[in-house]
Amino acid sequence: MALTRVVIIGGGFGGLTAARALRHADVILIDRTNHHVFQPLLYQVATAALSPSDIAWPLRTVFRAQPNVRVVMDDVVAIDRTTRAVLLKDSAPISFDTLVVSPGSRHAYFGHDDWEPFAPGLKTMRDAVRLRERMLLAFEQAEQRRAETGAQDRLTFVIVGGGPTGVEIAGALAEIGRRAMGPDYPHLCLDDLSIILVEAGPRILPGFDPTLSTRAVTALLHKGVTVRLNSPVEAIHAESVMIGGEWIPSTNVIWAAGNKASPLLDTIQAPQDSNGRVKVRADLTIPDDPWIFVIGDAAHYQGGDGKPLPGIAPVAMQQGRYVAHLINHNVSSDQRPPFRYTDRGMVATIGRAQAVAQLGSIHATGLLAWVLWCVVHIFFLIGFRNRFRVMSEWVWYYLTFKPGARVLY
Amino acid sequence: MALTRVVIIGGGFGGLTAARALRHADVILIDRTNHHVFQPLLYQVATAALSPSDIAWPLRTVFRAQPNVRVVMDDVVAIDRTTRAVLLKDSAPISFDTLVVSPGSRHAYFGHDDWEPFAPGLKTMRDAVRLRERMLLAFEQAEQRRAETGAQDRLTFVIVGGGPTGVEIAGALAEIGRRAMGPDYPHLCLDDLSIILVEAGPRILPGFDPTLSTRAVTALLHKGVTVRLNSPVEAIHAESVMIGGEWIPSTNVIWAAGNKASPLLDTIQAPQDSNGRVKVRADLTIPDDPWIFVIGDAAHYQGGDGKPLPGIAPVAMQQGRYVAHLINHNVSSDQRPPFRYTDRGMVATIGRAQAVAQLGSIHATGLLAWVLWCVVHIFFLIGFRNRFRVMSEWVWYYLTFKPGARVLY
Repeated sequence: MALTRVVIIGGGFGGLTAARALRHADVILIDRTNHHVFQPLLYQVATAALSPSDIAWPLRTVFRAQPNVRVVMDDVVAIDRTTRAVLLKDSAPISFDTLVVSPGSRHAYFGHDDWEPFAPGLKTMRDAVRLRERMLLAFEQAEQRRAETGAQDRLTFVIVGGGPTGVEIAGALAEIGRRAMGPDYPHLCLDDLSIILVEAGPRILPGFDPTLSTRAVTALLHKGVTVRLNSPVEAIHAESVMIGGEWIPSTNVIWAAGNKASPLLDTIQAPQDSNGRVKVRADLTIPDDPWIFVIGDAAHYQGGDGKPLPGIAPVAMQQGRYVAHLINHNVSSDQRPPFRYTDRGMVATIGRAQAVAQLGSIHATGLLAWVLWCVVHIFFLIGFRNRFRVMSEWVWYYLTFKPGARVLY
Repeated sequence: MALTRVVIIGGGFGGLTAARALRHADVILIDRTNHHVFQPLLYQVATAALSPSDIAWPLRTVFRAQPNVRVVMDDVVAIDRTTRAVLLKDSAPISFDTLVVSPGSRHAYFGHDDWEPFAPGLKTMRDAVRLRERMLLAFEQAEQRRAETGAQDRLTFVIVGGGPTGVEIAGALAEIGRRAMGPDYPHLCLDDLSIILVEAGPRILPGFDPTLSTRAVTALLHKGVTVRLNSPVEAIHAESVMIGGEWIPSTNVIWAAGNKASPLLDTIQAPQDSNGRVKVRADLTIPDDPWIFVIGDAAHYQGGDGKPLPGIAPVAMQQGRYVAHLINHNVSSDQRPPFRYTDRGMVATIGRAQAVAQLGSIHATGLLAWVLWCVVHIFFLIGFRNRFRVMSEWVWYYLTFKPGARVLY
């Protein structure tokens, strides 16, 4: 009997975890890039603290020791359920017995796609490298203008969205601006730098306990970040952004607000929610096919509290393991226990020696939460090399305030 | 009295060394990038062994502790000797009392500029990152074609130019192909990979002693590189290259042959040689201005043997120090001792545990030369962080054969 052919779309946390756990099947893992990226640290590449190869790992290398997994680098353009095949941009279609769909999501502009060029988001390594380039060039240009004309142009960064990504970017920018960039740009002073974190809702870090949201605001204010709550963005142009009826001049707007699941999901012919996520059943399959799974932030799965599970790495990884278990043991549709997410807590960093953490009823802030954040992130990085490189970069930056990856090319 | 204004064009080895040695003047260092790049290791970025930030250092950080040096990131478009100013692309002209011109060189195609898109060279970090992308995509595509059609397309790399850069690229590619890429691309076998080093002259490494050239050929052959001597390239198309009347199919041609000095030198109104280098006097100045210096591979300076000095880092660094000394002590034109180059030897690596070294009459090959190469290159890297990162990457690669920087973005 031929082995079951399992095709996995996407080498993010969900797809990668599933592929690693599938030991018996003939697995084809398709990704449009050649690497898995550790998304929780992507903002550190965007803010020039880490290099791309510190937090990414070639998929082929991950699966060197697992010969049942074949890696294909290509774009999946459609899922054809009639022929049970995925259609690729550059190569021949690949047929499947079982399909794991984990293509992730992109940032969404709430119907204002024209904002994208002025307010790039941060989902992929390419996004991070471009954001880094924009940031470094913004400092260069501000220094140059100051030296020539002494103009009062401020270097204003506006970060849209008060979730963990927005908070982490704002905190990192404030720190780099104050501690690392200062000595490098003699014509700029601290007053020239303005970092504004804009949140449409009533508080930042809405997934955390309200007391932690308040503490995060205090920590950000202390670092010099302006936090504007209840402030939806109304318009974004090339050189300014409108918030609460007021135009703020800024050429550096960063989008960390809405998400929209991959458009590939539209080809799967299954019910979707308003963010484009596929509404999966209790076993993470689509309603009319027990061997097509959708996982990660492409899936809309009702958690215990009636809300969909958040689009975070732990959910995707647990779903990947769950799906691999069903496939490994060929569990028939009526024998499957429902997927259950085990929430092990959340942690978001605000900068050097500052973070907020929430583990069940335990809340922590400050140095303790930050150390926890460091340990958790180092632990989940793939491979000894990356752990070692990231840790040594952090120690170096902690001691010297010289971020490691500020080379423009 | 106002301080002398010294403008330095280019933050390569010559310009950087001069700026660091100028302690009394008001120095403006202009570079079109924001970093100094350690060019001797650029081929390791191109072959995915090192990350860009491992071998580059932001110029602003280099001069943090030297407040008399101001860094400007811009393109110099012309040198205006009438107004004694350099004209910039994006900002106002900068006037000078003393000018140090060290813009380096670009690759030259001997009148065949149409070859450039098919045979990119390796001078800047951007070049290196693009070459790396081409190489990694070539392996991906070959693997994909093999898996689909089993075609006999070979993965052929043609490196044009048998100088140190060409030899180092050929050696590194052979090693990555054989040791690191093999396990990652299960459909490719060693026979699919073909690396051809093409040299127009009668031997590779012409700057070295002939016995070392011969040994380098042996080492390259041993690694599986085909070496073709006396073989000028006759034509390069998108998918093939003509050598000795024969078309070799290859979509991966790398140019490591001719150099041409920066076109900026044409605006200086001084005699140039056929490669565009300015013919400088014994004090490295242009004939009619004792305070305009040209150094590095932009300068044509007659060595003791009547040949121009080679365009290598030690020459540029010694020239930078010499020029800084003349400026620091305001040495008048008739009091200047001629510049004298001290040749401390040369070393070129062929791969893991393989190199050739020549220090005066001492010749070395193999492991000893390779250890020497490692030590010399680590020593000359700027900054503890980079030394540490590069060394740890080399140890990692030596032990695991997993090159560290294969992330495509």
